[in-house]
Amino acid sequence: MNRQELVGQIRTKKSFLCVGLDTDLKRIPEHLLENEYPVFEFNKAIIEATKEYAVAYKINIAFYEAMGPRGWISLQKTLRVIPENILTIADAKRGDIGNTADQYAKTFFQTYPFDAVTVAPYMGRDSIQPFLEYQNKWTIVLGLTSNKGSADFQMNELKNGRMTYEQVMYTTAEWGTEDNLMFVVGATKATSLTAIRAELPNHFFLIPGVGAQGGSLEDVVKNGMNEEIGLLINSSRGIIYASSGTDFAHAAQNAARKLQSQMAHYVG
Amino acid sequence: MNRQELVGQIRTKKSFLCVGLDTDLKRIPEHLLENEYPVFEFNKAIIEATKEYAVAYKINIAFYEAMGPRGWISLQKTLRVIPENILTIADAKRGDIGNTADQYAKTFFQTYPFDAVTVAPYMGRDSIQPFLEYQNKWTIVLGLTSNKGSADFQMNELKNGRMTYEQVMYTTAEWGTEDNLMFVVGATKATSLTAIRAELPNHFFLIPGVGAQGGSLEDVVKNGMNEEIGLLINSSRGIIYASSGTDFAHAAQNAARKLQSQMAHYVG
Repeated sequence: MNRQELVGQIRTKKSFLCVGLDTDLKRIPEHLLENEYPVFEFNKAIIEATKEYAVAYKINIAFYEAMGPRGWISLQKTLRVIPENILTIADAKRGDIGNTADQYAKTFFQTYPFDAVTVAPYMGRDSIQPFLEYQNKWTIVLGLTSNKGSADFQMNELKNGRMTYEQVMYTTAEWGTEDNLMFVVGATKATSLTAIRAELPNHFFLIPGVGAQGGSLEDVVKNGMNEEIGLLINSSRGIIYASSGTDFAHAAQNAARKLQSQMAHYVG
Repeated sequence: MNRQELVGQIRTKKSFLCVGLDTDLKRIPEHLLENEYPVFEFNKAIIEATKEYAVAYKINIAFYEAMGPRGWISLQKTLRVIPENILTIADAKRGDIGNTADQYAKTFFQTYPFDAVTVAPYMGRDSIQPFLEYQNKWTIVLGLTSNKGSADFQMNELKNGRMTYEQVMYTTAEWGTEDNLMFVVGATKATSLTAIRAELPNHFFLIPGVGAQGGSLEDVVKNGMNEEIGLLINSSRGIIYASSGTDFAHAAQNAARKLQSQMAHYVG
């Protein structure tokens, strides 16, 4: 999916909501467990209920990987029921030397045909370049993450005066374009967003951390939005686990609709 | 596998060789392709041929992941044919927020029962802690990697005078112990090893980059060895692709034996 199509979806749906499918077998309603692929059945119901309000789905690979080979089959089946005009993100945070990065890019752009994948920057350019070589695909690089541990290394100050996360984002921005590169910036770091947006006016940012992690939608919008919106705000647990009963899909729909209606103010 | 057992294996075999199973379907001998799980058959023959000389096998997860669910079955089958007294390393370089890191730790310590897993440090302490909580397992944190891209961020100088990779290694060292934490230091960075070893006298280092990437065994030993050896030197392509013919296992055996015989000088 290219930039124009993504922005088009945002305008049409008046939404920049990304629904995170961090689907944990231990947290899905009990009545689904009798299915052959309960995680897939859960995801399918969530997608059906929220697709009107979401412009992206982010699949957190760890949760599928932990289930063994069957987890990947659930993932494959999930990917097939996501409507084509919705962006699919593999939240994988991979990063390795060139010949291995080639394999990771193949995994998430070919074996499982996602539109986008998150990558970790620690190993530098040759760990990111192979992802950028795919047409109409997006590479989403970790910038400033939403967790407590982001203070450990990302917020170290460099001799040149920049923070490590700034150096990472502004250097990486030169390796790709606004049409194939996005960055992860945590909603819990909304005050840093103003400076990041000033430096990177046109890139899309994937923003986790609204909801369960404590970030505020309003602050993110105020500090991070650009003319093409430029934001994908992810909510995982707040939507998919809105209810643990048989009404889980309906509750997820309500939670997604609520976020979308807040977003509509800003898109309109 | 605990530290004492690992050091015992090194002394018994007079070897600190780790064989990297970066098995690529495109590079294995053609006659194996008729098997149901060709990658597993290849690995099985390589393991049988090299287990006398290796103290560790490192499975590069990307190559298995790229094959889809069947790749993970090949991985599972491979893990089962590695002798119990040989350390198994999942080269996965995972790293994510706490609740997701839990899942990755479960993946590589339970779903696939590896002894060790490589992790990426960018997201800080809560991305590493869940791995350290497992007993008798090893967490191997990326320090200074062997690739060209290591210069992009790892070698940035911080305001406190340290390089980023030093800050990462010396900070992370405080989160674990010498009994559950190792570091990746590329063989191509042998000159930096002296200073790293001075700061971390007792930790094991996993050293990729000897062979195909150009690092020298002699330099690594000179600068990095400690009283318990403290090194695991990985060779992947130089061993497993020593021949592309039907004699691939024999050629791999010769390549592994050659490296082991060089190592024997230093262990003895």
